[in-house]
Amino acid sequence: MTGLRLPEADERVLARREEIVADLRAIVPGEGVIATERGMRPYESDALTAYRQLPLVVVLPSTTEQVAAILKYCHANEIRVVPRGSGTSLSGGSLPLQDAVLLGMGKFNRILDVDYANRCAVVQPGVTNLGITRAVEQDGFYYAPDPSSQIACSIGGNVGENSGGVHCLKYGLTTNNVLGVELVLITGEIVRLGGKHLDAGGLDLLSVVIGSEGLLGVVTEVTVRLLKKPDTARALLVGFPTSEDAGDCVARIIGQGIIPAGIEMMDRDAIAAAEAFVNVGYPLDVEALLIVELDGPEAECAHLLGEVEAIARDCRAVTLRVSQSEEERLGFWAGRKAAFPAVGRLSPDYLCMDGTIPRKELPLVLSRMRELSQKYGLRVANVFHAGDGNLHPLILYDANKEGELDAAEAFGADILRLCVEVGGVLTGEHGVGIEKRDLMPEMFNEVDLAQQLRVKCAFDDKGLLNPGKVFPTLHRCAELGRMHVSGGVLPFPDLPRF
Amino acid sequence: MTGLRLPEADERVLARREEIVADLRAIVPGEGVIATERGMRPYESDALTAYRQLPLVVVLPSTTEQVAAILKYCHANEIRVVPRGSGTSLSGGSLPLQDAVLLGMGKFNRILDVDYANRCAVVQPGVTNLGITRAVEQDGFYYAPDPSSQIACSIGGNVGENSGGVHCLKYGLTTNNVLGVELVLITGEIVRLGGKHLDAGGLDLLSVVIGSEGLLGVVTEVTVRLLKKPDTARALLVGFPTSEDAGDCVARIIGQGIIPAGIEMMDRDAIAAAEAFVNVGYPLDVEALLIVELDGPEAECAHLLGEVEAIARDCRAVTLRVSQSEEERLGFWAGRKAAFPAVGRLSPDYLCMDGTIPRKELPLVLSRMRELSQKYGLRVANVFHAGDGNLHPLILYDANKEGELDAAEAFGADILRLCVEVGGVLTGEHGVGIEKRDLMPEMFNEVDLAQQLRVKCAFDDKGLLNPGKVFPTLHRCAELGRMHVSGGVLPFPDLPRF
Repeated sequence: MTGLRLPEADERVLARREEIVADLRAIVPGEGVIATERGMRPYESDALTAYRQLPLVVVLPSTTEQVAAILKYCHANEIRVVPRGSGTSLSGGSLPLQDAVLLGMGKFNRILDVDYANRCAVVQPGVTNLGITRAVEQDGFYYAPDPSSQIACSIGGNVGENSGGVHCLKYGLTTNNVLGVELVLITGEIVRLGGKHLDAGGLDLLSVVIGSEGLLGVVTEVTVRLLKKPDTARALLVGFPTSEDAGDCVARIIGQGIIPAGIEMMDRDAIAAAEAFVNVGYPLDVEALLIVELDGPEAECAHLLGEVEAIARDCRAVTLRVSQSEEERLGFWAGRKAAFPAVGRLSPDYLCMDGTIPRKELPLVLSRMRELSQKYGLRVANVFHAGDGNLHPLILYDANKEGELDAAEAFGADILRLCVEVGGVLTGEHGVGIEKRDLMPEMFNEVDLAQQLRVKCAFDDKGLLNPGKVFPTLHRCAELGRMHVSGGVLPFPDLPRF
Repeated sequence: MTGLRLPEADERVLARREEIVADLRAIVPGEGVIATERGMRPYESDALTAYRQLPLVVVLPSTTEQVAAILKYCHANEIRVVPRGSGTSLSGGSLPLQDAVLLGMGKFNRILDVDYANRCAVVQPGVTNLGITRAVEQDGFYYAPDPSSQIACSIGGNVGENSGGVHCLKYGLTTNNVLGVELVLITGEIVRLGGKHLDAGGLDLLSVVIGSEGLLGVVTEVTVRLLKKPDTARALLVGFPTSEDAGDCVARIIGQGIIPAGIEMMDRDAIAAAEAFVNVGYPLDVEALLIVELDGPEAECAHLLGEVEAIARDCRAVTLRVSQSEEERLGFWAGRKAAFPAVGRLSPDYLCMDGTIPRKELPLVLSRMRELSQKYGLRVANVFHAGDGNLHPLILYDANKEGELDAAEAFGADILRLCVEVGGVLTGEHGVGIEKRDLMPEMFNEVDLAQQLRVKCAFDDKGLLNPGKVFPTLHRCAELGRMHVSGGVLPFPDLPRF
């Protein structure tokens, strides 16, 4: 993240700030416009706290009509807009810009419709991820994606980042669980994409909006799929003498056609940290630990547990425990869920990376990561969604030691390049944001990026929505016929790093 | 479909036909270019045989490089291109144009890679849908979407139309089972979208390409998800005194959180026709029949069978049979699968419609459809994927009776308008093509269509790919800033109807 560049501020907009604030107050009355430094301070960063920037102004609309009026005004006046949900993005997706309106969607917090016959719910984007499940769990249903921030993160943010969680191996990412959205375009026009039905005919714009990180429009309503809670869930805790054995075990479980609800993996450092933190009985003498959860009817769980056990033993598992009660199962997870803060005790600072690889490359990537760890002289603790190949290596460093942050960032970039090299991608569930923006050319060539940017322009002709995120280079839409991305980068001024 | 309009032929292209054929022969040598009337005759229509048109020339490339060279040539020379898989489209998606190159992808018929550890296969687009399952079934795997044309239809065509089948209720449409494609743009540039991994970061262009009906580019490679064959599959045959009861039963099964592998519904006319055709013991004294299939581990099937039975009895089911053997289960399906040809014996001609509604609206739509049947004086036999609300009403008519085809078409359009009115959509799995193109404004407003067309232009700036399909109006991309769709339609000449 060294040398982060954001788009140069538009001086004409900065000069007109008072007028813009007044105009926005005419659209959103009362406390819905925040223009004081003190009032805006809570919005200066999201969960990627290494970077901070005060916005031009914060606006908190509460109706779709207000959102449409704000965007239409910004489009007419060429003012940039950064949309924001709960601000839990780990990739800096909602980092403000000095010359941009920060559009906070927190007031859109109502559940509009629960429709069991169509197995879906219609909610506003500011509803939290867990809030959906809470509204339907008394009837035996839930919303499947479960990012670890699910108590706080908004469903609108989930749509923006295509969020996952520990159960997305079986139940899919946000894109597999959202049926429709209402989207306000930068022109203020309102489109409805998808709904309570199958593919609508015409172009499927819903999927391109999911995971578009606020670059295409502002979502004001979301229709999500509801799932029935499984009858049973049981977890296995399996220890291995090497990470390669654990990686091999994951590939073989999947290769045999079994789809557990989740397969999580932790390495020696992460195991030790988690066990010291929560004391749930993780084995400390293994190099790698898998938590494999199976869910469904009881008979199915029992049958699959047996198959997974056999595969694990075949892959040289040295310890193996099956949860015998719901309490024990939750205990197995408690360590995994506490792993990030626990690792925080091993080291003053850490960087949480997010890359994805084809499952069968796990053993190779783990071994190459160890070589990189030696090269950079930095420890790495591995905690990840192994079942779907989504790695979250935590690079341990000390920001107070000269050069360690730079080394950690270079190490992180090398890990992501490695992911791409073996056929994987730069992100699993955290998004590109500003964090991985400059690595996009590692993943996509000029033709790929130009095509993505043409689609971006098809939604946002003036490039006003969340500029500086996702794409390494800003272009005027008219240039895109002949653009060359991997060459020059526009001269963005550096943003102070905290 | 009365008064079908196709884009006016480009006279300059027609005048240069000899030169174009020669140029294409330089790209695809030997028998890969077909320019004689007799040779082109098999390509003059797809499975929507009511319309026929000879193309400018047929080209059958066998490498991605050839496809790229053909498209680059057509782009430079402003020649239209109609892509074609196996030609099984029911919506006229690959109907040729007089001035367009017909690009047949049948020679792309190889399975390139089967990768069980990543549970996917990489195949060329001309491989048939069933060909994928045949390549992996000895290892216990299969490819889930199963359109009734699966012996013949190509996976490239499935991608173009986002095809479904009787099992898409549980296993999803093509868009849920394709992980990546290689796509050649009209400029000849090649992009790779998705792959053997999770969402790639950046914009998700894979999903917008799936179901885009050949309007965005030409797919030259497809990575599909493989599923493990379920241990058990059992089917229930349930008869009801009214269609409303059957519709209610479907809504309640789903509402209770059960997801059968498939729920098919047939009404009295369809049941009688199917039973007369295959003689499998369907009850003849009921108004509606459901076939409900449950699959998975044996214990799960047995448990869910009990739940479905209880719901069915609660919904006034009058007959109920559970398959006791694999032979009996296949018998239950044999009638359903023969329903279309069987209904063909009730009437000289029929129109097969394809619309989708929210499941809970089934009873209402069935009753409204009966009113329409009386209004038009035409019988309608209902055979459809009830579980996901995808209707296939078959409107019976006699083309030799003056005005009956027109009445049938008007009846069909009313059914689709009804689908949209209750919150559904114009198509479930057959695509829009030319068949439902002029109904698109029933579903989408000007803003929706303009946004879709801007995305189309972001891929195909000259509008050369499959023009006249999906969108009711042709526009130059430059117009789209200010376009108004629902107003005027460009003056397309009528195409002769057969």
